[in-house]
Parts: sequence; structure tokens; C-alpha cells
Amino acid sequence: MRHQPHLLVPEVWAEGVLDVGDDAVRHMTKVLRYPLGAPVTYTNGQGIIGTGTWSGSGIDRGEETRITRSGRVVDVIVAAPNAKERQRFLVEKCQEIGVRRLSWLDARWSSGRLPPPHKAEAWAVGALEQSRGAWLMSIDGPIGVEAGTDVLVADAGGEPIRRYVSASGRMAIVVGPEGGFAPGEIPDDLVRVRIVDTVLRTDTAAVVGAAILRST
Amino acid sequence: MRHQPHLLVPEVWAEGVLDVGDDAVRHMTKVLRYPLGAPVTYTNGQGIIGTGTWSGSGIDRGEETRITRSGRVVDVIVAAPNAKERQRFLVEKCQEIGVRRLSWLDARWSSGRLPPPHKAEAWAVGALEQSRGAWLMSIDGPIGVEAGTDVLVADAGGEPIRRYVSASGRMAIVVGPEGGFAPGEIPDDLVRVRIVDTVLRTDTAAVVGAAILRST
Repeated sequence: MRHQPHLLVPEVWAEGVLDVGDDAVRHMTKVLRYPLGAPVTYTNGQGIIGTGTWSGSGIDRGEETRITRSGRVVDVIVAAPNAKERQRFLVEKCQEIGVRRLSWLDARWSSGRLPPPHKAEAWAVGALEQSRGAWLMSIDGPIGVEAGTDVLVADAGGEPIRRYVSASGRMAIVVGPEGGFAPGEIPDDLVRVRIVDTVLRTDTAAVVGAAILRST
Repeated sequence: MRHQPHLLVPEVWAEGVLDVGDDAVRHMTKVLRYPLGAPVTYTNGQGIIGTGTWSGSGIDRGEETRITRSGRVVDVIVAAPNAKERQRFLVEKCQEIGVRRLSWLDARWSSGRLPPPHKAEAWAVGALEQSRGAWLMSIDGPIGVEAGTDVLVADAGGEPIRRYVSASGRMAIVVGPEGGFAPGEIPDDLVRVRIVDTVLRTDTAAVVGAAILRST
């Protein structure tokens, strides 16, 4: 069975045939040699998924449905890891598990340089297409952390995270740099949570913490 | 602050000074230029952690304590992903979150070639040392899956995994290949669980599923 491509095509969508961009056309024709008229799914990254056919230079639009975001809304605020491969892993996995928004934390004791925004977005798009999703994660930052009852901070000395899994509504998890937070960097009254009983790297804590909050 | 090395030194341990092997000596002397007499921690990967000092060619043994395995015992049985980087990610993250045993699944519809055992073990050792752990994950396979009430199979159409999070005792999670299980490959009566509400890759499902079962 041929693997059916799933493409992110940002709005605004034209009537009839969707323009998918030169890179996607090249990939579909040169790499996949995808047959004319074969089925393709597409999404705007904002909840709409369509089933169309490959026109050779774009997608003939077909039936389109709106997918609601399922499960809890989870945001991640994380100090960028140093290694590019860990940054990429973090972006891809957060997209896959359905994180709504990934923000790089503005942390004084972090040495990680942020990935270029177009690169981080490309990682997320790749993961969205691979997992056939309908909701593209947004990526921003560096940002600070504000107080809120729905904000959890990963901390090996904190309370068990499971206590917060069934709480309703939106939730954000903050993961600081390996060196910890600088004094006054985050509000004192945020809830600290322990994720598992072992020491986790920044990227692992962020992905696994978000997944626990997203778990069914 | 200098980062203090944490080294896996498999048993049997000599009295006095521990032999750490040529690679570790080279790393400590050439790469880290670690000072003579400076503190080093070490583990046998079986629950013992010691605090010793660097002798220039080994570790002068110091105080040693036994660390009990904390949290639930979780095993992972997973079809090997294709890409080496995903295999490596899987091994490292499972070690980090404290999985006891990682077994490659003997799956007919899996195209992933297993990593060489010495390589997979080296990934786990690296992650153990990085996360300053006391328990080295074992890696084996390919194996089949036997029936058991403590075995969960990742399946997008299954029951919410959270129902099984607070069950006591040991638990194993099985993650099949992207192409699914071949007929009769796993027992029919195993519990199927949905991890999150999005489609996950093999490696993500294994890591995140294990982390949810390990969550505090």
C-alpha cells in the first residue's frame, strides 16, 4: 500500500486547486513520483482536514471536515536545550502529542541558543504531516513566566504530577534550564511538580510532562 | 562549578581503586582534564552509587549506598523504529525515565533493523551517566509477547491509559510497528490503551507510554 501524503497548506485557500509550494511539488513529483489523481489529504493546521487528489502541481480540493482539538489544551514553556538534535526532538514530539503552543523560556542560566524560527516551524510541520494532524503547534519566545493556577513547574522536589492530570481546562508546564532558574526569574507561588522518580533532561521533562498532562 | 562525572563501572569491583576502562580514562584525562583527587560518583548499574575520587587512572572508592528502585517497575516491548536516531532516542529516553527492561519486539511487519547490542547498550550507559542514575536498563530481544494482565498494548482505538496508571505492581507496554501487528502475533486478550488523542510514532508512543506508567 502506497503511503498517502498529508500536507500542510496554510490558508488562504483558493477555490478548486490548492497551491502547495515548490518544495512540496518537487517532493511529490521527483521523490514520491506520486500519480496524478491519487488521493492526498491536507490541512490548514487550524483544524480543517481535506481529502483531495494530486493534480501534478497542487491539490484538487475535495471533502473537508473540521476536527476539534481533542484532549486537554497543553502549552509548554521550556529553556532551549543546547544541542540542535534535542531542540528538534523537542519540537517534533511536542507537535506529535498535540501541544498547542511551545514557547522558549527566557532563562538567564540557559546556554542554549534558540533555533531559527523558520527551522523550528519546519520541524513542527514535518511532524504534523507525518502524524496526519490537523492542528499545527505554534512556537514563540523567548518569553517569561507569569503567575497562574494553571502553570506547573517541573521540579524533582515537587508534588506528584498525577495530582494535576485530571484537573480540567488548559494547563502549561514550565521546564527550566539544567542550571536551574535564576533568582526571581519565575513567580514563587507556582506549583512545582515531579514528573517521574528519575532525573530528566530538559527536553525529556518537557515532552514527557506534556504527554502526562495530555494523556487520555 | 565543574560538572561532576558519574560513571558506570560494572561489577565485580576491586578493593580500593576501581578500573574504569581505557575509554573512560581517556575521556577523564584528555577531554575533561579532570583533576587528581576530585570527586567522582560511580554506580554498578544495579542500585549502588558511590562517591569516590579520581585517581588519574581509576576511581578511589568512597562511601557507597544502595538506592532502591523508586516508582513502578515498567518494561517496554517495542518494534524497532527504522531510523537509527529514533532507536537511539528511544533507548536514551527509556533509560532516563527509569524503564527496567527494553525488549525489541519480534514483529513480522516491522522493517526496522535492530541496532547492534553493544551500541544500544552504549546509548543506555550514556543516558544513565548523564542522568546520574543507579539502575541500568537491560536491553534484549527480539522477543514475542505473552499474555498477562500486566501487559498493555498501545492502540489508538483502546481505552484511556490513565485507567491503568494507578494500578499497582509491574507493568509492560507493547508498541507495535507502524504497519500494525501481523495476525496472531500478539495474544487477543491483551488490554489495548490509547495514550494521547493524537497519532504517535512508534518511538514516541513507547517513551510517552512508559513515562505515563512511571509518572509520580
